[in-house]
Amino acid sequence: MNTSHPDEPDVTGQATGETPGQTTGEDVTAELARLRDSIDNIDAAVVHMLAERFKCTQQVGHLKARHQLPPADPSREARQIARLRQLAENAKLDPAFAEKLLNFIIAEVIRHHETIAAGEE
Amino acid sequence: MNTSHPDEPDVTGQATGETPGQTTGEDVTAELARLRDSIDNIDAAVVHMLAERFKCTQQVGHLKARHQLPPADPSREARQIARLRQLAENAKLDPAFAEKLLNFIIAEVIRHHETIAAGEE
Repeated sequence: MNTSHPDEPDVTGQATGETPGQTTGEDVTAELARLRDSIDNIDAAVVHMLAERFKCTQQVGHLKARHQLPPADPSREARQIARLRQLAENAKLDPAFAEKLLNFIIAEVIRHHETIAAGEE
Repeated sequence: MNTSHPDEPDVTGQATGETPGQTTGEDVTAELARLRDSIDNIDAAVVHMLAERFKCTQQVGHLKARHQLPPADPSREARQIARLRQLAENAKLDPAFAEKLLNFIIAEVIRHHETIAAGEE
């Protein structure tokens, strides 16, 4: 499919005698509902992936606290960001957005690590 | 905490004289690597899910632009947030974090929608 072409070519404007490319109000509502269902499914998947991710980072946090390792790890983070930017580019996701998102998640993780470290001091 | 502190830390220094139940420096390194591999796998999955999500929201953006619907939709967003908070709670992910994350993603989506709308005006 041509991604630069505005959407879903098969909505049923043709069936109701509309000019090609137009949709009826009902079609628009149905199409919007279809897309939103997909978005909701993806969001549920992401929430569950992130729940699993925090389980991993909680374990990292306990490991670091027990061995007096610093909560943040700039060289690891730099490698993660470079890798994610590349993955994003391959997946046609804005690499700048992927980087901002990872930083957002890492900030939360570091907060958790600090809490864990404070608790284990 | 000193975030400017570089590592991977040399965890092997702590291998000696540890109390039972503690891991050796080598174990710590291996365990950290194992957890980080999982985190990297999850991040790759999330990047690909979000790439797919933006494909959906781009279609929503074109649909909205073509039918002069507003880029933002506060009632839809309120429903999404309530649902995601519930999903997060069930998955033992901090609901406040899930909400912040969704807002972060939605802000990006709305920027995209505005760009699309400007292009189709």
